[in-house]
Amino acid sequence: MNLILLSPDDIENDRLARVRDPRRLVHLREVHRARAGDAMTLGIEGGTLGRGELLSLSETEAVFEVSGLDQAPPPALPVHLVLALPRPRMLARTLEHVTALGVKELTLLNTRRVEKSYWQSPELGEEKIYRHLVLGLEQARDTRLPRVTLAKGFRPFVEDALPGLLADRRGLLAHPGMPEACPRGIGEDTLLVVGPEGGFIPWEVERLLEAGCRGIHMGPRILRVETAVTALLARLF
Amino acid sequence: MNLILLSPDDIENDRLARVRDPRRLVHLREVHRARAGDAMTLGIEGGTLGRGELLSLSETEAVFEVSGLDQAPPPALPVHLVLALPRPRMLARTLEHVTALGVKELTLLNTRRVEKSYWQSPELGEEKIYRHLVLGLEQARDTRLPRVTLAKGFRPFVEDALPGLLADRRGLLAHPGMPEACPRGIGEDTLLVVGPEGGFIPWEVERLLEAGCRGIHMGPRILRVETAVTALLARLF
Repeated sequence: MNLILLSPDDIENDRLARVRDPRRLVHLREVHRARAGDAMTLGIEGGTLGRGELLSLSETEAVFEVSGLDQAPPPALPVHLVLALPRPRMLARTLEHVTALGVKELTLLNTRRVEKSYWQSPELGEEKIYRHLVLGLEQARDTRLPRVTLAKGFRPFVEDALPGLLADRRGLLAHPGMPEACPRGIGEDTLLVVGPEGGFIPWEVERLLEAGCRGIHMGPRILRVETAVTALLARLF
Repeated sequence: MNLILLSPDDIENDRLARVRDPRRLVHLREVHRARAGDAMTLGIEGGTLGRGELLSLSETEAVFEVSGLDQAPPPALPVHLVLALPRPRMLARTLEHVTALGVKELTLLNTRRVEKSYWQSPELGEEKIYRHLVLGLEQARDTRLPRVTLAKGFRPFVEDALPGLLADRRGLLAHPGMPEACPRGIGEDTLLVVGPEGGFIPWEVERLLEAGCRGIHMGPRILRVETAVTALLARLF
């Protein structure tokens, strides 16, 4: 936790916040070795951040002074990431990576090579996803949660949702063998589509290109989804 | 395994290779569902790669025809990565990521904020490191193993090893708060230094800058080591 992220439930009033969940209390005690009087980096979910004082810390709660939090969170990446649903353990890590990198819009997409069982994983529960997003925010000292959307049908996503999403941003399809190398340091709003382990099938690639996505590649190396996503975001933005 | 990587022990002669270890045999049967007659992507450790035929597959061995492997492995990154030793689980993943991305020279460095216990981890055993490097090569369809060096003293590394390493390549120190943003798409030989969770201490930063490294940053977000390393490599090269 590079940031103590305070949820609406933690905020008592415009001066005080109380943290009561065991995860953060244990972390405050055992990693930060925090004591009353310490100044810590605090942020309010969806809001500002800054330094605030730990007023007291017991087995059951930590009380913070929060009146001085006046910094804006770091800028977001101008990207809507559309990611074929990864297997559960990779999903958990990828949610943390992309949240830390500043993604604010994430669609998890079904494709032919996404195993059906992945959609039944407990990792897709709202609470579980929220927990990984918070870990990403705490890591990167950000306060704004990404919005995560599940798109359980490839065809409805491409036919019904994608045209609207591409109305005001460019679409890029990252797929091995595409003719163009991934561009560097673009500033524009982008929708970035990344396939599953094993890739999109040719029919899916055709639909995405037809919908207006430009195909790009990251070179001859085949990367794991979590590596590829981080590498793409770092190169594009 | 996007590539069956054949070690010197597997090669019987210039036509045949025999794979006998359970990991690859299970993977061939259960993930690839391979059968005799299948053409598969094969590579020879340190050598060429290409398509070869699976001649037979039993509980105890897989026999491959390897005479037609004539492709060069993908290009390496022109980087010597110097990484503060991460905690063991992160080390394992980071070895796979950086190998898949094409790093061929890796130094694991002691710094003040590296916990001493990390140097006792079984993950630092030669066999364990080799296994993670092979996983990275198999992922990226590469055949050339990185060289991994352990530098258990910060001062000896900076005073004795670093001047020679910087004689014919630029040095970059990735550290939050440095004045210059990480450059994009450089082609030159580079030594890239990345600190531990919690960062280098100021004294270490000074020594690295004095030795000739240029300080660069990746923006206001604090990234986990594995995310930061992938992002740095993708942006630099």
